[in-house]
Amino acid sequence: MITFITGNAGKFKEASAIVPGLVQQDLDLPEIQELDPHAVIAAKLDEARKHLTEGALVVEDTSLHIDALGGLPGPLIKWFLDRLRAEGIAELVEKLGKGSTAEARCVVGYLAEGSVEPQFFEGTMRGTIVAPRGENGFGWDVIFQPEGSAKTLGELSFDEKNVISIRAQAFGAFAVGVS
Amino acid sequence: MITFITGNAGKFKEASAIVPGLVQQDLDLPEIQELDPHAVIAAKLDEARKHLTEGALVVEDTSLHIDALGGLPGPLIKWFLDRLRAEGIAELVEKLGKGSTAEARCVVGYLAEGSVEPQFFEGTMRGTIVAPRGENGFGWDVIFQPEGSAKTLGELSFDEKNVISIRAQAFGAFAVGVS
Repeated sequence: MITFITGNAGKFKEASAIVPGLVQQDLDLPEIQELDPHAVIAAKLDEARKHLTEGALVVEDTSLHIDALGGLPGPLIKWFLDRLRAEGIAELVEKLGKGSTAEARCVVGYLAEGSVEPQFFEGTMRGTIVAPRGENGFGWDVIFQPEGSAKTLGELSFDEKNVISIRAQAFGAFAVGVS
Repeated sequence: MITFITGNAGKFKEASAIVPGLVQQDLDLPEIQELDPHAVIAAKLDEARKHLTEGALVVEDTSLHIDALGGLPGPLIKWFLDRLRAEGIAELVEKLGKGSTAEARCVVGYLAEGSVEPQFFEGTMRGTIVAPRGENGFGWDVIFQPEGSAKTLGELSFDEKNVISIRAQAFGAFAVGVS
């Protein structure tokens, strides 16, 4: 049994489509303060193992790394959204005037039963931070325009977005790597 | 016995001058991702209690809340310094053009033996974020100019800084509140 620890039904649905047989469980795990998603995930898996002693565990982290901000906010993106909202982040990047390139990353961490060493699988996408456009998606989708795309993630339909989804990439690598 | 959990000898020295009899212990406690210092400290005390089951415990958190950034970085200041350095933070605030006011906060959390409910004591100082000036202090001292002062914290001598120290304020309130 592989338990995907998430409270987000959308993420679980996307992952399940790629890795059949996943079981969802919502655990309120604290996130530690780190800019490296691997460290955040490893700590979460460690904590989750105290609650779920059997089976394999999966944890996911999505982060946004803006080059002009030295890779910030990274996994701290939720606090930037909370305090500045997506449009405030775009405004910050524009006014700073040091370029708008960024990388979106989805890291999946997997802890096999009996193991203390997680395995990691990643999906990444380069893009630029732009003024908000679109109504779809959530979080920073409306200000992230993937490289080679004329639309922001917020302007893509659900199906269009899934084709280039970094979460689908990460869970795809996971499906290959673990099975 | 009151144990002040910190790896920072300077902080311990400053606190000891105000609260005699403190014992220093360095524990590598994870910081959780929260913008409210109280939540960060409560989680640290909780974790520390697992290692130190006897006596009272004290944990301190210093944070910088910039108004134009909606209160960011707050306790996340160390990551901003890590990625942008003090001068990069000052540049960001200046280019954003939404004012440069900020608040520095020091929160001390105290957990009595046998208690699970921490008490908190605070020191705060209003000021503005300016281009770096001065050679003293550390971290963001060179870009923080206290209200009513012509100097940044980085331009104050050790003794001058101690007079207005938010850490001294917080431990002063602690000394009054706990004894």
